[in-house]
Amino acid sequence: MRYQLFYWPEIQGRGEFVRLALEDAGASNDDVARKPGGEGRMMAMMNGRDKHPPFAPPFLKAGKLVIAQAAEILFYLGPRLKLSPRDEVSRLWLHQLQLTVSDFVKEIHDTHHPLGGELYYEDAKPEAKRFTDNFLHVRAPKYLGYFEKVLKKSGGPYALGRKVSYMDLSLFQLVEGLRYAFPKAMRRIERDVPRVVAVRDRIATREGVKAYLQSPRRIPFNEMGVFRHYAELDE
Amino acid sequence: MRYQLFYWPEIQGRGEFVRLALEDAGASNDDVARKPGGEGRMMAMMNGRDKHPPFAPPFLKAGKLVIAQAAEILFYLGPRLKLSPRDEVSRLWLHQLQLTVSDFVKEIHDTHHPLGGELYYEDAKPEAKRFTDNFLHVRAPKYLGYFEKVLKKSGGPYALGRKVSYMDLSLFQLVEGLRYAFPKAMRRIERDVPRVVAVRDRIATREGVKAYLQSPRRIPFNEMGVFRHYAELDE
Repeated sequence: MRYQLFYWPEIQGRGEFVRLALEDAGASNDDVARKPGGEGRMMAMMNGRDKHPPFAPPFLKAGKLVIAQAAEILFYLGPRLKLSPRDEVSRLWLHQLQLTVSDFVKEIHDTHHPLGGELYYEDAKPEAKRFTDNFLHVRAPKYLGYFEKVLKKSGGPYALGRKVSYMDLSLFQLVEGLRYAFPKAMRRIERDVPRVVAVRDRIATREGVKAYLQSPRRIPFNEMGVFRHYAELDE
Repeated sequence: MRYQLFYWPEIQGRGEFVRLALEDAGASNDDVARKPGGEGRMMAMMNGRDKHPPFAPPFLKAGKLVIAQAAEILFYLGPRLKLSPRDEVSRLWLHQLQLTVSDFVKEIHDTHHPLGGELYYEDAKPEAKRFTDNFLHVRAPKYLGYFEKVLKKSGGPYALGRKVSYMDLSLFQLVEGLRYAFPKAMRRIERDVPRVVAVRDRIATREGVKAYLQSPRRIPFNEMGVFRHYAELDE
């Protein structure tokens, strides 16, 4: 099976959680919108050519199946890429964790766009600062602290225990992204979540991930994606 | 199977999407946190007594299984309550739609809490007004317009076609809640989404739903939940 991923070509964004899983597993795939004509094809699919039109990218085409929502794509891919167990109880638990990642990612996005994604960052800067203050002192420690608790309960080193899953790849991406966006705050926050940081370090040494990070397939962090560095928002 | 639902006892909120499914199906269930000592039991489960501690309510206990996230609870309950087909392709499509409902609900919540749920509404009123203007003119029409397109593609009258699913119950709740929160804006917005409104009307006549709405089990809308009526935010 050759997977086709549809996501915005210039950012990591929500698509990156899927890209990391495909790359770690060495799954053959096309990052469609980064190829000539691909972005037009992505828009056409959203505009309803398909029986099941997605609301927004990312979405994945696997044969005839089209599925959207990063967490659902990972739920589908998990067992197929050997990044998730096959039994229902484990799959539901992993999906639940990934949905919590999705909620966290939405709040990370809102640090620079608290009043709506349609505005420019510059149009709501004081509001972004207020949102981010609360985010860095309450929300980010709460989410990361929750994942820390999960890692403690699992017995480690991974979210499900001894076997790696797509959730661990997402923890890697969260730490990387938050370090890029809020380097100062993260130095403080990381002190309380050593297990989360240890997952990040382990994932960084995986063969598929290492090769991917050094390749041109990995889009650098920038100020168009979910994780943006605006020095004035950091603490 | 007697299901145990754990959700905040004083609001409809995200738990209502699950309550509606249980009630429509006539499934035996306890709304645990509304019973004496129930809220403490809910907090204890979140605080990690369980192997798979939820990040936040709602969560469902089905035998030994504990699952959180409204959309995932519905994914699990769907076939069991005959509110979803059993085949993988339909289940994934329905779940994807429900995850889009979750994203919409988050934005609905943010109309009164754009700078974070930890603040009081009164602490960010001008920001709530700016957020809500964009929400009522761009976001709500976009989400509801998407669901309208889905209903058109399905052939109607329901999201999957001729058979009702939990997604249709959620559309009912979205229209009811938005009418409560933004009665004036909804009169305008509804003109462009007749199929969505028709789903609301059909669901309102279902036996289980009708009985539930007239019972004390249905918590009235109020200014503590997701859907809040603040006249100054409406158009």
